[in-house]
Amino acid sequence: MDKMNLTKHISSQFNEEIEQVRNHVMAMGGLIEQQLADALNAIASSDSDLARQVITNDLMVNDWELKIDHECTRIIAKRQPAASDLRLIMAIIKTISDLERIGDEAERIAKVALESFNSAQQDLLVNLDNMGRHVAQMLHDVLDAFARMDVEAALAVHREDKKVDREYEAITRQLMTYMMEDPRSIPKIMNVLWSARSMERIGDRCKNIAEYIVFLVKGKDVRHADDEKLEQDARS
Amino acid sequence: MDKMNLTKHISSQFNEEIEQVRNHVMAMGGLIEQQLADALNAIASSDSDLARQVITNDLMVNDWELKIDHECTRIIAKRQPAASDLRLIMAIIKTISDLERIGDEAERIAKVALESFNSAQQDLLVNLDNMGRHVAQMLHDVLDAFARMDVEAALAVHREDKKVDREYEAITRQLMTYMMEDPRSIPKIMNVLWSARSMERIGDRCKNIAEYIVFLVKGKDVRHADDEKLEQDARS
Repeated sequence: MDKMNLTKHISSQFNEEIEQVRNHVMAMGGLIEQQLADALNAIASSDSDLARQVITNDLMVNDWELKIDHECTRIIAKRQPAASDLRLIMAIIKTISDLERIGDEAERIAKVALESFNSAQQDLLVNLDNMGRHVAQMLHDVLDAFARMDVEAALAVHREDKKVDREYEAITRQLMTYMMEDPRSIPKIMNVLWSARSMERIGDRCKNIAEYIVFLVKGKDVRHADDEKLEQDARS
Repeated sequence: MDKMNLTKHISSQFNEEIEQVRNHVMAMGGLIEQQLADALNAIASSDSDLARQVITNDLMVNDWELKIDHECTRIIAKRQPAASDLRLIMAIIKTISDLERIGDEAERIAKVALESFNSAQQDLLVNLDNMGRHVAQMLHDVLDAFARMDVEAALAVHREDKKVDREYEAITRQLMTYMMEDPRSIPKIMNVLWSARSMERIGDRCKNIAEYIVFLVKGKDVRHADDEKLEQDARS
């Protein structure tokens, strides 16, 4: 396992500030994990109250993003960090932007629970739920990799995204077939499709965060690299 | 008009470096404008070669993002900018992330031109084209506002996004009605819908960039604020 010792070469006060920002990123991540879990549970149990709660709570996610962003800018201005400390701040700034957008996607997913579905349509939601649980696990794992600065765990999340893409394609085909057989259901099923798309995007964003972790620990920018190159770079 | 004099209080060498990064952002922006224009032209003239070119060129967009990102990190590490200079760097880092994703959306839009449409379907594409031209204009205007650090122009782009959202809703309704009448067309029309969704997202991202410009010039973070509050803050 490849970790980075973040406490080297920095003053104790600086260290505390960095620690606090990292804790805030984890708190924001925890809130978003909860949002996504609530959105999925709202759909599974047709709980429109819970769905509305997810929609309201998105404001808290936005607040976290602004707060952490300001903290990072303040640290740069005040502490003028260099090398690995600066990389950490840059990685945090990018990570919270992706986290905030995962929060937006969770809000969109929750909206599916505001619709009512007949029993045939409920069956379609089972696959959506599976895909949702899959990306929720990715989110959990990438936050864990972030907390531990664990490159191997980040690479595992990165690989996982391909599976999510395949799940997404399968669900899309299934939903399109259903709409062709029952065209009156199109507006309702479209919402399910948007929700599947949101989950696919959450997978993409978890993959982005995994790339920031590799960048942070290894000092190599691996964005837009193909998988093989990424794994090579991350391990060299 | 509200502009910011970026050349105050900074050394000449630093000034040159900042100028270069700003020029690179404009070059990246110009490339993405071209990508979006090509994607729309590819659809309008059913030109699959042009569409494939847009898809290939997206690699250049990605390269720009990495290059500018590195330049910004280097400037922070080397120059330790404070106050408005640091705000500029932070705004650039966020702007290029949105620009890169606008590039991704242009690539998705171009893929519609790889399909062939019958004449009734061609009629549906007219509204898609109008919406595309609208967001292309927003992109042009927000890049212009960025170049001139023009808060009023940024606010105008910000307001425009509501109109794009309404256009998107109208197109979605129209496409869903068409699919209900001709269910066999669903897989093909879904691609048009995804493309409309991509345009709507481009509008959102132009709005984000407008917010960074206000933040940059005014030093106030206006993200997630409602329109009225935003205009108030921007003008105070």
